Amino acid sequence: MKTVSVIGDGGAPEGSLLYETAREVGRLVAERGYVLITGGLFGVMEGASRGAKEKGGLTVGILPHYENLSNPYVDIKIPSGMGHARNVIVVSSASKIVVAVGGNYGTLSEIAHALKLGKKVVGFRTWEIEGIENYENSKDFVAYLSSLL
Amino acid sequence: MKTVSVIGDGGAPEGSLLYETAREVGRLVAERGYVLITGGLFGVMEGASRGAKEKGGLTVGILPHYENLSNPYVDIKIPSGMGHARNVIVVSSASKIVVAVGGNYGTLSEIAHALKLGKKVVGFRTWEIEGIENYENSKDFVAYLSSLL
Amino acid sequence: MKTVSVIGDGGAPEGSLLYETAREVGRLVAERGYVLITGGLFGVMEGASRGAKEKGGLTVGILPHYENLSNPYVDIKIPSGMGHARNVIVVSSASKIVVAVGGNYGTLSEIAHALKLGKKVVGFRTWEIEGIENYENSKDFVAYLSSLL
Amino acid sequence: MKTVSVIGDGGAPEGSLLYETAREVGRLVAERGYVLITGGLFGVMEGASRGAKEKGGLTVGILPHYENLSNPYVDIKIPSGMGHARNVIVVSSASKIVVAVGGNYGTLSEIAHALKLGKKVVGFRTWEIEGIENYENSKDFVAYLSSLL
Repeated sequence: MKTVSVIGDGGAPEGSLLYETAREVGRLVAERGYVLITGGLFGVMEGASRGAKEKGGLTVGILPHYENLSNPYVDIKIPSGMGHARNVIVVSSASKIVVAVGGNYGTLSEIAHALKLGKKVVGFRTWEIEGIENYENSKDFVAYLSSLL
Repeated sequence: MKTVSVIGDGGAPEGSLLYETAREVGRLVAERGYVLITGGLFGVMEGASRGAKEKGGLTVGILPHYENLSNPYVDIKIPSGMGHARNVIVVSSASKIVVAVGGNYGTLSEIAHALKLGKKVVGFRTWEIEGIENYENSKDFVAYLSSLL
Repeated sequence: MKTVSVIGDGGAPEGSLLYETAREVGRLVAERGYVLITGGLFGVMEGASRGAKEKGGLTVGILPHYENLSNPYVDIKIPSGMGHARNVIVVSSASKIVVAVGGNYGTLSEIAHALKLGKKVVGFRTWEIEGIENYENSKDFVAYLSSLL
Repeated sequence: MKTVSVIGDGGAPEGSLLYETAREVGRLVAERGYVLITGGLFGVMEGASRGAKEKGGLTVGILPHYENLSNPYVDIKIPSGMGHARNVIVVSSASKIVVAVGGNYGTLSEIAHALKLGKKVVGFRTWEIEGIENYENSKDFVAYLSSLL
């Protein structure tokens, strides 16, 4: 199975542009037959997982802790217990494409690890880093991602 | 989704008692609706994954390297790049039950991590460690496992 | 610099045979010019670190968390944040010799990882595992270890 | 003991501005009594370690592999075997200050992890990331760092 990883702002609330854009990404990922990989927690991770489940997709959450705690849209929980080092696994688990939606330093570490590992990183309102394509407009972003999947 | 982790001898060849017992475990795990977690490599990991796929199950392989390399029966590859530390994740990803089939020091580390994390470990011809149930007879072993799932 | 790792019962209180034996091990390690590596926490880890400092040695603690919290005899703190996966690093950091003093499942995982990595494991009242030498008598144990360092 | 972590371009050759600046950082770190933490490999990691040893300092190298292989100026080798995840440990091991000298995506991941963990990051010709101070002039950079240590 092919996978896409979605990373980003873990604090974006339901209804926000970041959360809802991630949700649309999740739907798209599922519709195209990819398994969704996230860090399993909240905000963008939840939005993407929720969207994927709305389209009958399969979702994996690679958690920083050992507890089974995740957002409710994660099918398979991988409780790594590795703290921030789990960020490496979230992006190394993408077959090719990593999608970044907003995000702070944790997301930046994931973008960096993804680029180091040779993944293609597509961003929406995320860090402006050489090597990634970063969209400001949600529609353009989803259209571009759609062309890649 | 509920998960079962299968660990054990990574060198057991197809047709050997360990490989074929793992295969039977894989079938059972899939039939009972669990997702199978393994280290994604060969021997027992392959046997279990193969058995699960024979019954239409879903298999996850948590790999020690970053490459996409695994046995051919792994659906979702998690290339952790963490070396032996991935052993911790293989067992922390079990909802409750870890099954050990044969195995050497790597398997022993997984048994130890599993017991430390409070998982139930069921063994077939594996390490005799306080806290695990270890069967010598394949039929008894599968029957017991069947009663747990 | 050459290193020796000491692992074992994290709950052994000051004055107990395990704690005091670890302390003697720490003294010996420091006297022979090795840097001491431990998991940085309490019980045997503390005893060994304390003994090493009594002889002017240098101590490293590889911690499971991100906090700076350790026993007071750790010179260099490596707060890995990797949970149980830090056990791998504790033993991979030994130049050659890993010393196990008592211990439970966490220690067993370290013994297994050490043997997998080709380290020599010397034990005192620890797990009876094929491939390690395990002493019941403290004096014999220290004499044997002394012959190795 | 207090520690400073130095990260950066692993390919900078001896004699280059990045290597020699890192070397000066290493000297400064050692003179002020800090233990130097690096990733233990080459380029900036070697330059910093070499500088620290020139001033009688103590150096720790947190290696991505299990082998004992490092630059020749590393006193204590921590062969983590964790691949890129060792980047987290390199910066989590800094008491407070992380120094970035040049660097590519690996360094960016370390800067991000450092900022996430609340470390102060001081940079020389490295990534322009919100939250770090990044100097273009070597003299100014060293003077500023000197004021912090």
